[in-house]
Amino acid sequence: MANQIYSTVPRSSWNKRVNPDLDIERKNKSFNVERLTNILDGGAEFTQKRRQVESIVHSDPVFNLKNNYFMSQNQRYEAAIQKSIQYRKLMMQRGWKEDGIEKKYIYRALGGDTAFNIHSVFKQALNSLGSDEQIEKWTPLIDSFQIIVTYAQTELGHGTYLQGLETTATYDASTQEFVLNTPTLSATKWWPGDLGRTATHALILANLYSSGRCHGMHGFILPIRSLQDHSPLPGITVGDIGPKMNFEQTDNGFLQLDHIRIPRENMLNRFSQVLPDGTYVKQGTPQSNYLTMIVLRVQLLASEFIPALVKACIIATRYSVVRHQSKIKPSEPEAKILDYQTQQQKLFPQLATAYAFHFIDEIVIEFFKKSYQEIINGNITNLPELHALSAGMKAMMSDHCILGAELCRRACGGHGYSLLSGLPSLVTKVTASCTYEGENTVLYLQTARFLLKNFLQVQSSQSTPTLPQSIQYLASAGSGRCPAQRTSDFLSPQLYTEAFAHVAARLIRNSAQKLHNLTSSGIDQYVAWNQTAILHLQAAKAHCYHFTVKTFVESLKKLEKEPEIYQVIKRLCDLYALHGLLSNLGDFLYDGYMSRAQVELATEAYFSLLSLIRKDAILLTDAFDFSDESLNSALGCYDGNVYERLFEWAQLSPTNTEGNPAYEKYLRPFLKNNRSKL
Amino acid sequence: MANQIYSTVPRSSWNKRVNPDLDIERKNKSFNVERLTNILDGGAEFTQKRRQVESIVHSDPVFNLKNNYFMSQNQRYEAAIQKSIQYRKLMMQRGWKEDGIEKKYIYRALGGDTAFNIHSVFKQALNSLGSDEQIEKWTPLIDSFQIIVTYAQTELGHGTYLQGLETTATYDASTQEFVLNTPTLSATKWWPGDLGRTATHALILANLYSSGRCHGMHGFILPIRSLQDHSPLPGITVGDIGPKMNFEQTDNGFLQLDHIRIPRENMLNRFSQVLPDGTYVKQGTPQSNYLTMIVLRVQLLASEFIPALVKACIIATRYSVVRHQSKIKPSEPEAKILDYQTQQQKLFPQLATAYAFHFIDEIVIEFFKKSYQEIINGNITNLPELHALSAGMKAMMSDHCILGAELCRRACGGHGYSLLSGLPSLVTKVTASCTYEGENTVLYLQTARFLLKNFLQVQSSQSTPTLPQSIQYLASAGSGRCPAQRTSDFLSPQLYTEAFAHVAARLIRNSAQKLHNLTSSGIDQYVAWNQTAILHLQAAKAHCYHFTVKTFVESLKKLEKEPEIYQVIKRLCDLYALHGLLSNLGDFLYDGYMSRAQVELATEAYFSLLSLIRKDAILLTDAFDFSDESLNSALGCYDGNVYERLFEWAQLSPTNTEGNPAYEKYLRPFLKNNRSKL
Repeated sequence: MANQIYSTVPRSSWNKRVNPDLDIERKNKSFNVERLTNILDGGAEFTQKRRQVESIVHSDPVFNLKNNYFMSQNQRYEAAIQKSIQYRKLMMQRGWKEDGIEKKYIYRALGGDTAFNIHSVFKQALNSLGSDEQIEKWTPLIDSFQIIVTYAQTELGHGTYLQGLETTATYDASTQEFVLNTPTLSATKWWPGDLGRTATHALILANLYSSGRCHGMHGFILPIRSLQDHSPLPGITVGDIGPKMNFEQTDNGFLQLDHIRIPRENMLNRFSQVLPDGTYVKQGTPQSNYLTMIVLRVQLLASEFIPALVKACIIATRYSVVRHQSKIKPSEPEAKILDYQTQQQKLFPQLATAYAFHFIDEIVIEFFKKSYQEIINGNITNLPELHALSAGMKAMMSDHCILGAELCRRACGGHGYSLLSGLPSLVTKVTASCTYEGENTVLYLQTARFLLKNFLQVQSSQSTPTLPQSIQYLASAGSGRCPAQRTSDFLSPQLYTEAFAHVAARLIRNSAQKLHNLTSSGIDQYVAWNQTAILHLQAAKAHCYHFTVKTFVESLKKLEKEPEIYQVIKRLCDLYALHGLLSNLGDFLYDGYMSRAQVELATEAYFSLLSLIRKDAILLTDAFDFSDESLNSALGCYDGNVYERLFEWAQLSPTNTEGNPAYEKYLRPFLKNNRSKL
Repeated sequence: MANQIYSTVPRSSWNKRVNPDLDIERKNKSFNVERLTNILDGGAEFTQKRRQVESIVHSDPVFNLKNNYFMSQNQRYEAAIQKSIQYRKLMMQRGWKEDGIEKKYIYRALGGDTAFNIHSVFKQALNSLGSDEQIEKWTPLIDSFQIIVTYAQTELGHGTYLQGLETTATYDASTQEFVLNTPTLSATKWWPGDLGRTATHALILANLYSSGRCHGMHGFILPIRSLQDHSPLPGITVGDIGPKMNFEQTDNGFLQLDHIRIPRENMLNRFSQVLPDGTYVKQGTPQSNYLTMIVLRVQLLASEFIPALVKACIIATRYSVVRHQSKIKPSEPEAKILDYQTQQQKLFPQLATAYAFHFIDEIVIEFFKKSYQEIINGNITNLPELHALSAGMKAMMSDHCILGAELCRRACGGHGYSLLSGLPSLVTKVTASCTYEGENTVLYLQTARFLLKNFLQVQSSQSTPTLPQSIQYLASAGSGRCPAQRTSDFLSPQLYTEAFAHVAARLIRNSAQKLHNLTSSGIDQYVAWNQTAILHLQAAKAHCYHFTVKTFVESLKKLEKEPEIYQVIKRLCDLYALHGLLSNLGDFLYDGYMSRAQVELATEAYFSLLSLIRKDAILLTDAFDFSDESLNSALGCYDGNVYERLFEWAQLSPTNTEGNPAYEKYLRPFLKNNRSKL
């Protein structure tokens, strides 16, 4: 199975002959594409299973995405509900588990165009914060979809800063109930997915008041709609928040509570509880509250961010060998746009980032799984690092996936602006990720606090302290110089990893120093933090960059046994690092770590990588093995019949099929009147 | 009039008391906001006229934009047609001229949400390329809207590279007609606005064939729809290209021609014509063909790019003083998010860019008007510079306006993702500008060719040659060092303008040198150009940056008579320059032009500007005087009642008003079935 013939074949109904401009790119492979697909999937058996699931999904017309670009928000929602119910039935029929790999494959195939996605968030919160009893009670109801649940945290006037939430849960000892209330307009729950029209229950994040004291944020399970007729329960105002940049399939909602009573048992109480008499009892660390968010952030990397970038790369790269524009030499025909250095400069760093993030995610997940288990068992040693790492990686990966997907879109010129290209919806969807599950600037600053704390420890301790793994470079990175002497030196993972470590360590040191200067001059520490926040942000970004470079290099080592694949991925790793270096050149030049001559060498190395990657570019995008149905792009299909498809799809648009009532209503009388004046 | 009391008052129907968090920002003004508004408008009399026009527009319900966010593509188109006809009637009633300032004010008030916008493109082409006779014949038909016209250049397979267009116009001497034809699918005209459902005539760009020879691109006027019933004329296939990222109001169309005959007179023939016998006669410079595009590019700066950025700045800045999130000091209430240094870092460089571009545009327009008149009169001395400048400014300003608008959107967190914020539609509309009227990378490279040519001239000439004004720095910028010694030195316009000149000149020199190295080593010059294209692109960008800094500084000088306003605009100018410098630090450090110590000084200067601009930020956005109706934003209204408006507007969404058929169809049976299994 492992070395079967390359089988990423077109599976679309528009399948015609493969465009020769694309076909020729697939000749003379320098590596086995199917083998790379298997590696990306985690093994040939997973590739096989994924394709089986996809083939089942794509054979069912309910799952067809083709009409998405023509639908209104209401139609998208309705289609998502239909799809999601079908998908549940399918899972039931096939006996696929809620936490099984098949579910992930369905989600991948549908590009997340489904409802009930907050179910897993609710479950995650329940599993992290609920008692065993509560988990036992609610899990079967959720898993069997007797109820549909959402997770209501964000409010109209409050987002990432949890302590600012205004919703209250006041314990009434006389009835042993909590009274949930929305005291102000800005306390209206706003944005939760599946809330607007779908959910029957919500997990409400609210400030707990008991015996006259506030005990901070806690989670409460609240029924919001009648199980008889789905109407909002008394005292509950609920609806949809209206049109958005994307996510039309999701009914993001609002919710106002007018003194709603729920039983005492509905507060999630693994780490704290309210006794019948109102006494508040704490049983765990306050940090445990962050676990749900950590889990979510880690899950988002592979489920939301990376696929958006990967798909954008596939579409833009395929289109770039079909599209011809202008001439490189006057004597030759118009060139494929991928042959222009400027187009390579747009796309290849994104392709390298897509691979980088894929491999980095695997390592982050490994660390996460190990640490999560320890934390749940009460060992919180790794919690600060896990928190900083998940925050930083969520921020960085979402930022870069947004940027990369948009660069790919623009690299497709006018056609990249048509929804039919598939690119606008990838961009407008992934762009939400800079905000949800923690605003990126806030997250970077959380990582910065972790870095600062550890840096101060290194600075103050006599001996070398034991640092968390991801920041061990803080103890070793010194004031050295980049040793590169030849172009090829910049293709040394050790050399560029050290360069990134040097810059990150310097920026962390610098931000700490500036903060110290301000506080030493008598400025309040909080004010001083704000006055140096831009520097902390820079430091956190540099740290994250170093982490991704270092981790991509580590992943690369695992491929050493497969020299052909190692070679192409090594080039992407080198490009990823050098692109990061050249895009942030000031940081490497600032203290003379790099010289002018070394910048020239790095630039040369970078240019040479662009031409080397050029010949494998299509194969590298093919290897991700996204089906035409999933890409849903007139520009990006496997067969490259771009113009045929654009023309054919445009004919199906309601702008062509629904007539032109504006003519009779406005244009005809207007033109007639103008002409009669002659 | 000039010093009347500040009168940018709320004019919205949702007008309530002004949010106190916003109100307090408008106290203790450090400058006269009304006076700044007058300066931005070009004089108090223009402010008055603009407000008159806006008040007329906003009083007519047809022009209301409020429902835009809830409309389908078909509804948006219909509404735009209705608006545009109403707007013509208004102009007729009031006696406002087609080229008058009132039309610009209507367009500004409606945010370009209109049809018939390609009329002016057609007219521009007619005026630039048509004979006097042709202008005389077609102008009245167009101006009186007896016909509706479009400009059909781009094809399905061809964009910026005009020579690649495939549509043919073959002269038939026997009938004295041109035969227009679409020979292939990729030759289908694709993207022209107003073409899909509206236009009766099109100006077709096609390759002229006569007496068996091809004479390149020419323009031909072609009737495409029946003047009786608007149906496509025989041999013409026309329709809409389908859904897009924005521009739903515009029926961008496709067009295929099957050997359509038009009379000989329909070829635009100011610079070339075909005689009855088929002889081709040239009467002008080939460059004249570019005039239409130059005119368009220059017009777009003020009509499309800058307003998008300005509006995004207004919305995001106002929201940022209403929104409170987290605490700066634990003892204080949650802070306005604009008080965070990181938020200032997101918004103020955009605000500075908005002002920079406004003033730079005025100077570009002046130069353009002067040169255009000369060119039309046969003096093409300034044509190369005008072409390079309009290409470079179109590319740079659109790039920065796109980036800035999106940064403003993201700076509003989750609410910036709601269409009701007004931000997504600003972003998705302006983002098209990186492609239309010339793809930005291609345009930058055209500027680069101009720079290279002039640089080689400087290098090869014995004495100092007379260089076009915008590149005179090429002759003077040397290998000096930045002279800054104190933080305040970085607030010297001369100092930073020179720094940008130094970098631009160095990058131009470097790209020329690298190109020379390659050709000297025997590489074909065209291949060598492509292998150094990234360097040319960098050089052109640096040149454009220098031009904008230098020009903003020049504009600033004109404000010296008004010290209060001078002071606030000077801060924006300084910030614009220093942000550019710090964002491209590698360029300034590379050759030791700046030292590490100077970077520290520049950073300090930059941070201090952020806090200084903070207190004027709201007034600076108010000064642009965009009405609530034009902003059409729940976040950005003058009164700052953000949450009230978000909540109220959401209730009007079709997701709340059109019921939930998905419940009866899918959810109810699904839930019922799941529950029955108990």
